[in-house]
Amino acid sequence: MKKITASVITIGDELLIGQVIDTNSAWIAQQLNKIGVWVQRRVAVGDVWDDIWKALDEENSISDIILITGGLGPTADDITKPLLCEYFGGKMVMSEDVLAHVTYLFEHVFKRPMPLLESNRKQAEIPDVCTVLKNDVGTAPAMLFEKNGKIFISMPGVPHEMKFIVETHVLPLLQQKFQLPFIGHRTLLTVGVGESFLAERIKDFEMNLPQNIKLAYLPNHGMVRLRLTAQGEKNITESELNKAFNILKKEVADVMAIDEDISFEILLGRLLKEKNKTVSTAESCTGGYIAHLITSVAGSSDYFKGSVVSYDNSIKQNVLRVTDETLKTVGAVSEETVQQMIIGVLNVMQTNYAVAVSGIMGPSGGSAEKPVGTVWMAVGNAQKIETKKMHFRFDRKRNIELTAINALYLLCEFIKKDK
Amino acid sequence: MKKITASVITIGDELLIGQVIDTNSAWIAQQLNKIGVWVQRRVAVGDVWDDIWKALDEENSISDIILITGGLGPTADDITKPLLCEYFGGKMVMSEDVLAHVTYLFEHVFKRPMPLLESNRKQAEIPDVCTVLKNDVGTAPAMLFEKNGKIFISMPGVPHEMKFIVETHVLPLLQQKFQLPFIGHRTLLTVGVGESFLAERIKDFEMNLPQNIKLAYLPNHGMVRLRLTAQGEKNITESELNKAFNILKKEVADVMAIDEDISFEILLGRLLKEKNKTVSTAESCTGGYIAHLITSVAGSSDYFKGSVVSYDNSIKQNVLRVTDETLKTVGAVSEETVQQMIIGVLNVMQTNYAVAVSGIMGPSGGSAEKPVGTVWMAVGNAQKIETKKMHFRFDRKRNIELTAINALYLLCEFIKKDK
Repeated sequence: MKKITASVITIGDELLIGQVIDTNSAWIAQQLNKIGVWVQRRVAVGDVWDDIWKALDEENSISDIILITGGLGPTADDITKPLLCEYFGGKMVMSEDVLAHVTYLFEHVFKRPMPLLESNRKQAEIPDVCTVLKNDVGTAPAMLFEKNGKIFISMPGVPHEMKFIVETHVLPLLQQKFQLPFIGHRTLLTVGVGESFLAERIKDFEMNLPQNIKLAYLPNHGMVRLRLTAQGEKNITESELNKAFNILKKEVADVMAIDEDISFEILLGRLLKEKNKTVSTAESCTGGYIAHLITSVAGSSDYFKGSVVSYDNSIKQNVLRVTDETLKTVGAVSEETVQQMIIGVLNVMQTNYAVAVSGIMGPSGGSAEKPVGTVWMAVGNAQKIETKKMHFRFDRKRNIELTAINALYLLCEFIKKDK
Repeated sequence: MKKITASVITIGDELLIGQVIDTNSAWIAQQLNKIGVWVQRRVAVGDVWDDIWKALDEENSISDIILITGGLGPTADDITKPLLCEYFGGKMVMSEDVLAHVTYLFEHVFKRPMPLLESNRKQAEIPDVCTVLKNDVGTAPAMLFEKNGKIFISMPGVPHEMKFIVETHVLPLLQQKFQLPFIGHRTLLTVGVGESFLAERIKDFEMNLPQNIKLAYLPNHGMVRLRLTAQGEKNITESELNKAFNILKKEVADVMAIDEDISFEILLGRLLKEKNKTVSTAESCTGGYIAHLITSVAGSSDYFKGSVVSYDNSIKQNVLRVTDETLKTVGAVSEETVQQMIIGVLNVMQTNYAVAVSGIMGPSGGSAEKPVGTVWMAVGNAQKIETKKMHFRFDRKRNIELTAINALYLLCEFIKKDK
């Protein structure tokens, strides 16, 4: 079966000066991958005619599918639409359907004064050589072009509009146009072993993998994900992949934390729902980030009751009942403090489990005894509290993330063990 | 003065299947821009020999500087180093300096059993045609290659290692090798006007801009940033840019929220430090995200005391003293509830200001009367509370972000007005 390949072109100066982080490409790649399209290149270019043209030529020469995002807004820095028109040899015409849709949006949804501005009317102009893919959630239409059996789709760069168009139009269209192979991934997460030591441990496994299965090491946040990727005919490939994954799971059983590509906050939700239990957080240095991760999961209100972010010591004392003596003798970043925070938040929130953290995230606030990056964390229930001291050596943002993820890991392990 | 251009190549299958979001490229682009290097293309390719080679050829043909990240880890999926060696016509040799550094890290920092694994020793092998740029914070060395006056730098993809190398080696090196022009950006943030209406308002301004100054519209989170970018000789360009920016500020004065490229949480910190005041948050639907944004700013412990995340109604009642009657009659997502949350959290946290939010973020939990996306927010102090109802129409993640950003905006405006 022929491998169907795609390129993603993102257009916009804001990507090239780093003002905006490109989250679209990763999302698009995930979606294409799921239906068996192999993204082989991603290119970002500015709002420059020649650069866009060149990118179209280059990707046209290597991929079957070229997805383009960005450059379709109503303002003057957008040259993508006229360029596509010329590239595919068409002329610009007014689409009455798109105009009706834009008018409807401005009048009834955005509730803006009528008549339409010229720039909004222009959004309804399209190359006569394209098929419009209707954008129900915005004013800029997506456009489909076909040339020598290749598919080009131009979409707005606004993430939720792009996502709507990919889900509604692009994926069904590609599944219909191409005979797609099966691409499968299986991922697990290990904690506590470095990438190279892990590789040493499973080098025989890796060497014996079938040709169509690849192993990748994805280190992040001091943990390493292992990902198997297989490509081929669905039934055979899927069973080969499952077989290889089961062997891998056994090889790393003692350091494996999750045997899926999910986050600890999702695992936590599953564990709590299974046991029909609740959780709360008491956070100092993470400033609410652990609660944010937990509540980023839909349905978390079933098991998360709340959090006390006790950034200031007075809150640790008055709300969580950390004792004055503890704060004065061993300080806020100490085992005693996080233990008392657990007891305090269990009491305030009336939950089955709790997690607490206190540390120094930097860049300032460290001392010789407690340098920046020192963190105490605790997890517990009414019967038992477990604590752990960690030390992170990075910048503030990363230290906060690492603290939160490790605290969630500790909490999940605690709940797993709790009968 | 010649424009100095750069390309960024990121290597790794994980970028192409969307498992990882590429934040490196945006950061690199920001840094290069600051020193006057114009990033004209970013390309992401997988761990595929021919694709990497082709990307090197292509970017070599258009840019003066080619920065490469990723593909340097100790495991088997990394082919970048041997490829670079062949591309630049060298052979692999053991670098005693790098080996000593890797040994030191494993022995004293990571505290791993000695001797080194073969895969870790291999990290010290480098092409004999490169100059090593020492990676103090990791095991993979960065490598500098020069070819026909062009600069190639290969760096590890781990963000904090890449950042160390760019700041310590790359930027000083480029400033020394190239005569760099001045590139300046000035950005302001508008709230409450759509992109096209803004463009209509300032179209004369845009038409009269000098040739070397470009205006861009960057809509995000329902707000629009306007960015002026100028390039040229430093003194003249900077004064032209300032002049244009001052005119722009006057043109949009009534809808301008911030006249810099900073976030509301940074603005909030400045306002509070100026007035020597404190703040706390009472969060329901944002689940701690507002507190997280506030505490992501270094030094926020000077003005942020804490947060009560009252996800469950029992916490709204027991900790924040929202009345049973309010919850029973108008419900948790109501003006009365957020008003009482403000009073409650001011009392618990003893701060000068507070912000409170309660809403339905989705995907479930909505009703005909209060559909998903309905949010009540309040800001206030001991004297006065202001409330606002908003409605967001996106997915859970985006609804949470929009709620947090709009609440911070409301809070900043309240503090600005408060004498």
